[in-house]
Amino acid sequence: MARPVRHPTHHRVVIVGGGFGGLSCARSLDGKPVDVLLLDQRNYHLFTPLLYQVATSLLNPSDIAYPLRSIFRRSRNVRFQLARVVGLDLDRRTVRARTGEEIAYDSLVLATGSENDYFSNAELAQHTLGMKTLAEAMALRNHVLSCLELAARADSVQERREWLTFVIAGGGPTGVEYTGALAELLKLVLGRDFPELEPGMARIVLVEGQDRLLGAFHRRLGDYALRILCDWGIEVRLSTLVQKATRERVVLSDGEEIAARTIVWSAGVRPNDPLGETDLKRSRSRRLRVEERLRLREHPEVFVIGDAASVIEGGGELPMLSPPAMQAGRYVARAIMDRARGATGHRKPFRFVDKGTMATIGRHAAVADFHGVKLRGTIGWLAWLLVHIYYLIGFRNRAVVLASWGWNYLRLDRPIRLILRGGADEVAAALEPDSPAESR
Amino acid sequence: MARPVRHPTHHRVVIVGGGFGGLSCARSLDGKPVDVLLLDQRNYHLFTPLLYQVATSLLNPSDIAYPLRSIFRRSRNVRFQLARVVGLDLDRRTVRARTGEEIAYDSLVLATGSENDYFSNAELAQHTLGMKTLAEAMALRNHVLSCLELAARADSVQERREWLTFVIAGGGPTGVEYTGALAELLKLVLGRDFPELEPGMARIVLVEGQDRLLGAFHRRLGDYALRILCDWGIEVRLSTLVQKATRERVVLSDGEEIAARTIVWSAGVRPNDPLGETDLKRSRSRRLRVEERLRLREHPEVFVIGDAASVIEGGGELPMLSPPAMQAGRYVARAIMDRARGATGHRKPFRFVDKGTMATIGRHAAVADFHGVKLRGTIGWLAWLLVHIYYLIGFRNRAVVLASWGWNYLRLDRPIRLILRGGADEVAAALEPDSPAESR
Repeated sequence: MARPVRHPTHHRVVIVGGGFGGLSCARSLDGKPVDVLLLDQRNYHLFTPLLYQVATSLLNPSDIAYPLRSIFRRSRNVRFQLARVVGLDLDRRTVRARTGEEIAYDSLVLATGSENDYFSNAELAQHTLGMKTLAEAMALRNHVLSCLELAARADSVQERREWLTFVIAGGGPTGVEYTGALAELLKLVLGRDFPELEPGMARIVLVEGQDRLLGAFHRRLGDYALRILCDWGIEVRLSTLVQKATRERVVLSDGEEIAARTIVWSAGVRPNDPLGETDLKRSRSRRLRVEERLRLREHPEVFVIGDAASVIEGGGELPMLSPPAMQAGRYVARAIMDRARGATGHRKPFRFVDKGTMATIGRHAAVADFHGVKLRGTIGWLAWLLVHIYYLIGFRNRAVVLASWGWNYLRLDRPIRLILRGGADEVAAALEPDSPAESR
Repeated sequence: MARPVRHPTHHRVVIVGGGFGGLSCARSLDGKPVDVLLLDQRNYHLFTPLLYQVATSLLNPSDIAYPLRSIFRRSRNVRFQLARVVGLDLDRRTVRARTGEEIAYDSLVLATGSENDYFSNAELAQHTLGMKTLAEAMALRNHVLSCLELAARADSVQERREWLTFVIAGGGPTGVEYTGALAELLKLVLGRDFPELEPGMARIVLVEGQDRLLGAFHRRLGDYALRILCDWGIEVRLSTLVQKATRERVVLSDGEEIAARTIVWSAGVRPNDPLGETDLKRSRSRRLRVEERLRLREHPEVFVIGDAASVIEGGGELPMLSPPAMQAGRYVARAIMDRARGATGHRKPFRFVDKGTMATIGRHAAVADFHGVKLRGTIGWLAWLLVHIYYLIGFRNRAVVLASWGWNYLRLDRPIRLILRGGADEVAAALEPDSPAESR
């Protein structure tokens, strides 16, 4: 069952990052006469658009994460290696792994994505729960479920209120989708599983810095999302920032204090690349500036795509979303084949084809924006569902995901309500493990 | 959707532990005119017979774990509370939770199960991976998958060998079932996902203290299991103990040293109850002695069942398995109703009805022992499958579990190969998280 020998070739392509950008690039190079080494610090590709469903007990981690090695199991020229890239030597053309190993490349693709940005507020970093990684989504799930248990046995009404108050910072797609899903989770689980509690006891506050939700969308869709969330009893604070967070409270920029044990951070991401404080040019958002062919100006053999790259189009930077990353990955794959062939680069500059953006707020409530064609409500939700079915194709788990979705939407259930580890400290203490392995 | 008020009643039943024993007792008391409070330190019941399949990437945690609150969602008289019981006051008839809370009872059921027993060898506790809890099973899965990644990039043949050597201590059902499943996992994943490695490189050593495997079974079935495992190239050491374990090697009682980065511990469990060093009588296995009606002799209001209780029948202690625990749970439920009614206890002593034992070694290879009727091979495997289907009933997940089983047995796949956290230290280091939440 061992894989046949790879063609002998001398053009070594190293792709750093197995997200949407890196994966689509590696897939486009699969079977081509180049040697491709895909590096990632995790052994799986993560379907991030559904991360919030893992965080709200609707999906299993394995439903949205797919082992990278399996994807290229039958490939003759694409290899995967688990490695965390911590540095580059642009002149010697090598990447350095955390283990010290140096890996040489002829063409390099940086698709290292982004990470939570707390605007160097250590307090926020410490006391908020992120939603960028699978581990974060699981920690958030554990934390929220543990809060319900702790609310159920709280001594005072005040303490119970704190456990049942959830503040979400950031009203972009991630924040809105999580807020909607959390509201549904609480509606379904409180009262039904927790006779000690009633759905009315829970309080959800969504805090957004702009004067509207879903800034990337047409205002009408943002307004629609706002209306839906308010109908569901969610408090939305616009033009407001989360300024301060401790374990028991959050302070907003307008001075309001909210006693809450859960603060979810979806208010900012920053590019995450191994270039650190080099003299390479960065945009205001700290993304690496690339020329119109997605290369570092000084190093045409280094391509940067996805969240890590600052690509200017139509006066603005391309958003940190999967579609631009995937299109860039495919474009770069073609550019690399030109290089491998020694073709002189007359390839046209990269152009992003916007197929539209969408976000789901809850059952039968989603917004989709296709070039002025704006969908919402059930139609928007169905559109959202179709697109996600389409993009899940290639995932072994799509069947499972869809079945489980359908099943639970129908049964109004959230099956995966397991607290596998504690979230916040008190929770961790309350759930203190009884075996060393448990803390692993 | 809040639950109707419970009948007023004065008999308060506290059940400590939501395993097979405690759960069957709570289920039997559901709807009866008593107040039942079920306590567990986790919020789910775990279907432990399939834990080894989570540890070998075949099943998701949520396939074999079920939230206890959902089980009693519609109950009028059974409540669940997440609590870790750390002490009892037998005279004042209260249990003490880790949080300090004291809970009073009229009848108490101790169904606190068992935990890994390292025979007070701190080294073994530190350097081996257990398989008693869901967290341990996941940690083991993460560890084994990480070992493959680290073997794939090892510099020396020696180091690669160490990463690919797996020692399992204990040839009881857990050890044998895990060994078989691990052999299949490696056969399927090496070579196919790891072109750098070949299945032949992996080495599995099963170490058993007795002169045979599956001591609880008829010798012929133990011999069959031995033959199968040997056919699969697994090294089995009988009449041998694991004496010493460090991070890189294990030393056996016959002096043999094996360089291995993975040592799985299934060689001993000990009862786990909150009574500590009281003057209550314990058996040699440290289980609490109970009289023939499963009560503490001095405290007829305290029942002990399952792994925590030493029940003598036919000259021996009942084994630490789910069937005796479940039968005892149902028996105790009836005895408690007698007490609640004030009936004077003429109930017959507890008798365990042995329906037989079974263990699966791998696809089409299992052993079952029904009162002298000994099944093995495919027939034994089908019997095993049927029984587990039967016992999974009541689990929302049984459909998913079976579908996923069937699917992956057919496709010879192990879908859930995600490394969600590191196992061993080196692994943890190699996979060092890049977000604070990741370490939660």
